[in-house]
Amino acid sequence: MHLTPALRRQISDTIRMLAADGVEKANSGHPGAPMGQADIAFVLWHEFLRFDPTQPAWWARDRFVLSCGHASMLLYSLLHLWGYDVSLDDLKSFRQWDALTPGHPEVGLTPGVETTTGPLGQGVANSVGMALAARMLAARVGTADFNVVPQRVFVMCGDGDLMEGISSEAASLAGHWGLSNLIWIYDDNDISIDGNTDLAFTEDVEARFEAFGWNVLHADGHDHDEIRGALKQATRERERPTLVICRTHIGQGSPNKVDSAGVHGSPLGAKEMAATRANLGWPAETFHIPDDVRAFFAAARQDKIQARVAWEAGHRDWARRNPEKATLLDVLMRNRAPDDLAERLVAATPAAGATRKLSGAALAEAARAMPGLIGGSADLTESNGIDFHAFGVFQRETPDGRLVHYGIREHAMASINNGVLLHGGFRVFGGTFLVFADYLRPAVRLAALSHLPNVFILTHDSVFLGEDGPTHQPVEHLWALRLIPGVIEFRPADGLETAMAWTFALSRARGPVALALTRQNLPAVTRPAAFQPTDVLRGGYVVREAEKPDVVFVGTGSELQLCLAAADALAAEGRAVRVISMPSVALFLQQPAEYRDALLPPGHARIVSVEAGVTLPWKALTGLGGLNIGLDRFGASAPAAVLAEKFGLTAAAVTERVRAWLAG
Amino acid sequence: MHLTPALRRQISDTIRMLAADGVEKANSGHPGAPMGQADIAFVLWHEFLRFDPTQPAWWARDRFVLSCGHASMLLYSLLHLWGYDVSLDDLKSFRQWDALTPGHPEVGLTPGVETTTGPLGQGVANSVGMALAARMLAARVGTADFNVVPQRVFVMCGDGDLMEGISSEAASLAGHWGLSNLIWIYDDNDISIDGNTDLAFTEDVEARFEAFGWNVLHADGHDHDEIRGALKQATRERERPTLVICRTHIGQGSPNKVDSAGVHGSPLGAKEMAATRANLGWPAETFHIPDDVRAFFAAARQDKIQARVAWEAGHRDWARRNPEKATLLDVLMRNRAPDDLAERLVAATPAAGATRKLSGAALAEAARAMPGLIGGSADLTESNGIDFHAFGVFQRETPDGRLVHYGIREHAMASINNGVLLHGGFRVFGGTFLVFADYLRPAVRLAALSHLPNVFILTHDSVFLGEDGPTHQPVEHLWALRLIPGVIEFRPADGLETAMAWTFALSRARGPVALALTRQNLPAVTRPAAFQPTDVLRGGYVVREAEKPDVVFVGTGSELQLCLAAADALAAEGRAVRVISMPSVALFLQQPAEYRDALLPPGHARIVSVEAGVTLPWKALTGLGGLNIGLDRFGASAPAAVLAEKFGLTAAAVTERVRAWLAG
Repeated sequence: MHLTPALRRQISDTIRMLAADGVEKANSGHPGAPMGQADIAFVLWHEFLRFDPTQPAWWARDRFVLSCGHASMLLYSLLHLWGYDVSLDDLKSFRQWDALTPGHPEVGLTPGVETTTGPLGQGVANSVGMALAARMLAARVGTADFNVVPQRVFVMCGDGDLMEGISSEAASLAGHWGLSNLIWIYDDNDISIDGNTDLAFTEDVEARFEAFGWNVLHADGHDHDEIRGALKQATRERERPTLVICRTHIGQGSPNKVDSAGVHGSPLGAKEMAATRANLGWPAETFHIPDDVRAFFAAARQDKIQARVAWEAGHRDWARRNPEKATLLDVLMRNRAPDDLAERLVAATPAAGATRKLSGAALAEAARAMPGLIGGSADLTESNGIDFHAFGVFQRETPDGRLVHYGIREHAMASINNGVLLHGGFRVFGGTFLVFADYLRPAVRLAALSHLPNVFILTHDSVFLGEDGPTHQPVEHLWALRLIPGVIEFRPADGLETAMAWTFALSRARGPVALALTRQNLPAVTRPAAFQPTDVLRGGYVVREAEKPDVVFVGTGSELQLCLAAADALAAEGRAVRVISMPSVALFLQQPAEYRDALLPPGHARIVSVEAGVTLPWKALTGLGGLNIGLDRFGASAPAAVLAEKFGLTAAAVTERVRAWLAG
Repeated sequence: MHLTPALRRQISDTIRMLAADGVEKANSGHPGAPMGQADIAFVLWHEFLRFDPTQPAWWARDRFVLSCGHASMLLYSLLHLWGYDVSLDDLKSFRQWDALTPGHPEVGLTPGVETTTGPLGQGVANSVGMALAARMLAARVGTADFNVVPQRVFVMCGDGDLMEGISSEAASLAGHWGLSNLIWIYDDNDISIDGNTDLAFTEDVEARFEAFGWNVLHADGHDHDEIRGALKQATRERERPTLVICRTHIGQGSPNKVDSAGVHGSPLGAKEMAATRANLGWPAETFHIPDDVRAFFAAARQDKIQARVAWEAGHRDWARRNPEKATLLDVLMRNRAPDDLAERLVAATPAAGATRKLSGAALAEAARAMPGLIGGSADLTESNGIDFHAFGVFQRETPDGRLVHYGIREHAMASINNGVLLHGGFRVFGGTFLVFADYLRPAVRLAALSHLPNVFILTHDSVFLGEDGPTHQPVEHLWALRLIPGVIEFRPADGLETAMAWTFALSRARGPVALALTRQNLPAVTRPAAFQPTDVLRGGYVVREAEKPDVVFVGTGSELQLCLAAADALAAEGRAVRVISMPSVALFLQQPAEYRDALLPPGHARIVSVEAGVTLPWKALTGLGGLNIGLDRFGASAPAAVLAEKFGLTAAAVTERVRAWLAG
């Protein structure tokens, strides 16, 4: 079908008007960005993006990330026109309950949506992780005779994405790594919610990205030839990621609201919708798709399908010629934990020591068991116990390495790792201090919302890191993570719990896992004869039993030892004492009520929680009458042993407090 | 006293060795950065920095921010040598309990420490706020005849600061605002914890800062003449902030560990300490200060004092010539809320409406009452209800404006506002959506740790923002904020509670306040006759009383109405129902036990909490037997009324649930 200039314009306007109609019908949403980005998106999807609407999960497809997630109607309109399983009724249900078309794109919900966006800066950082995963995959299975990992990552982003600090972190890494398979298209429309970007955003974006080592190109975002030219040049680049700065008009097509902040986040309104229709020569019918446009997409869709089929034929030939690489590719893309992972990790992990180091031992064994396990730290590799140098360092020149140096960029690390998981081929972990979980929290939330099994290694998990002082000592962070729906946290008390925590983390299919690990050494926990390692995965289990306990202790991580010592002392005084280790409150709360009630009998008046952090939420486990030993203040700079004395977190102090409480 | 090259070297080496000795004695800390920065710091403090060790709070002093807070021994050594109230014993107590010299600098604890640093990137962002405050102050009280606000802000920062995204956000704003009173000195030593910065940080820092609109200079960080030359040039700049890139050697002086990651975060060790002493020609005595060095600082200290005295004399003359401006300066620097603030805000705030809009009305009145009240939003000015355009927009050309456009940079906004408060002269607020509190959380924590009354306007405070969907709908954020020690949160239910929340926020002397505000309209609350507005400041109070209640409701914000409606329905059925409004859980928990127990009788089996967010911590108020109505999952994209139905958060659904519970 011949793509005349008139048809081109009609297609772009169809995208525009579907988006505007969707927002108008919902009476809520963002028409301006889709209308401004329609031309770019059409040229990109038609002439560059490799995809097959009938197989949205085709692993070798190019990825399209809509980092400016509020432009969701752009994406939904494209998905419909290209024949993904997104109907016209879905477009008409924009922003309604249970629709495939929520206000911001949600991965897993809508076929063709590659990542959940909306919180600005996350999509661009995700895209770096996708490109990283593709690069790593190519390094492992690539051969000279066939382009086995052809996928590129294309991103549409806006002013907000580029203002957010995470975009600088992620762009700096992308430049450092030389990810030439990554192309960001900057919808440079001079408008943000508050008005013209002159209000707060006057930096030289081109120079900034060149400073990050990027290839920077320009195009008029409404001129299809310029767009094509820039994208051609971008896809030919072999050394650097590319930023294409596209000058656009927000709300293009709307005669009175174009180039204004008013078109950003509100429907155009009936009057301006009519004016826009008149301006574009568009019929009154809403959600109108001209026949020529339908016909064009029907044909173009077949071309996309054919291209995928042809590539797969080539890929099958390649697999026959390279059976070992093909097997490896298959292993990586499935990326399953082996069935004996628990046994292997338990065997490889010493019983006693700092749990960060024990974690390192478990992780190294996991890496031997799972070739697709990669990750690293935000410049705290050794402090985080990540003993991974044997697997090689990933760099531009050594893309087969598995240890990633993210630099001091916690937020980008977490979001990049979300992108790695979204791409597939790898499981991934990222390390920092627990206190700096605050720096990467938005990405933890998106991992939870997107069901991504991102693993966070969070060491130095209490005031017992000692001298670095309150700026580095978490007290509220564990509970703050536990509150995010879908996050599973572990705070293991010894090697066995650490090994099982890693087993869980690397076996979890959906949702992030946060491991809180000590800086200081811990002894091994002695457990009852009936104990099974899988008991750890119930979140809480009995470490020391008493049939009819006078008092029940619940401890986590390093404080379990305080509970056990206090139990010994109180037992010697004739008290019946039960001690529960609770490495994962989140998993414990998922257990059946009978299991939970058996451990923590409802109405039992003497339950003591001990954890070196804020205590208030522990009431949900101990009841109001329980005793909650912890730390409801910021820490202090001093050696760990001194802090333990001062904060009443020694075995003697805990014993004495509980003794007095039982007597009182 | 003549400063010979030999004496210069001796002074720099004294700083170096005090730092190394401090770390060695503590057996913990970071010797490398202080040793590398000693030359720069000496030249800066001696020849440029305006301060008086006898008056650390002198308002017109220059500010020195050690953004790389781990180099704390550099700062402590300087403070001691210059004769601040930091003794040699304090240096010997580095990182010990109750010492003035904690592992990372803490403002308020140690005289001469300007801000709490350690979490990287925060100090540089704070510094932008300090420079902003100085610029704003100068615009208000400056005259041609005297430099009334002479202070500059000097910052020492490292690779980590510049890798963190917040530094890009803050630097972009500083460039946009043209803060020529701001000078960052970049300790460019090529080393981070993981090793050489080549591992992850190869961007062109000079080009990046030029892109941000900065003046960029270079110096050899160990050559006093080059340092002086660069700082002279920096202090002459009138249009742009300046970055001085100083090439340094981490651990300078240590013959075997210089230029290595090993010298970053561990003591040198006895052997290398000895080698360093030999290398520098330093005696065996620890914490040695040569007599010439002592004598130099004694004299130089007098010069600093004299300079301050001379400036103050000039300032007194200026005040006599400009009595109105002098009075305004005094008002701004004291910056107290007027005694009748509560009355004014209550009178100015409508009773009903969206609390974000009610907040805007209160805020506008507060701005009329307090000329030093400034602030703005991260590009959501109108959405956040910030009705502030009447007070002018702060920009480079209009520094007398009071509305600040931070752009889409939540993290920098919060940290810059911490800096504004540290500088003095202004009270400040910053707005974004509650869900994006995650983006600025590290700065909230530092506000709490530093006792800064930073006010956060966090609107769209529940799933009831509706169609934008789960990426924008907070569910865990309120509790996550409540868990940070020292944060006071408010979630007002109507205009009166909103006005009192603002009264509290603007009167609080120490510690941050987070205001969670609705997008949607709320009706006015009807209160008992005995109610006083100050009851709101108890955090929780009775809105509907029943002597011996069958059931007690606790509601916050928009869900208070659900409680009241359910109470009406249940009362009609003969139940005795008490309803408590709890706009601030944090303040309620600070009340005496008898007050709390009177409202929520201990052991009462029928307490119901209603809040559209995660429920687990509410057990701490309702007891295990209580009923906690909320939302323990992510939200969804749909109109608010539909979400209320689907999530059981309508008056009818709450009534029915409680009715069934009471019957069951």
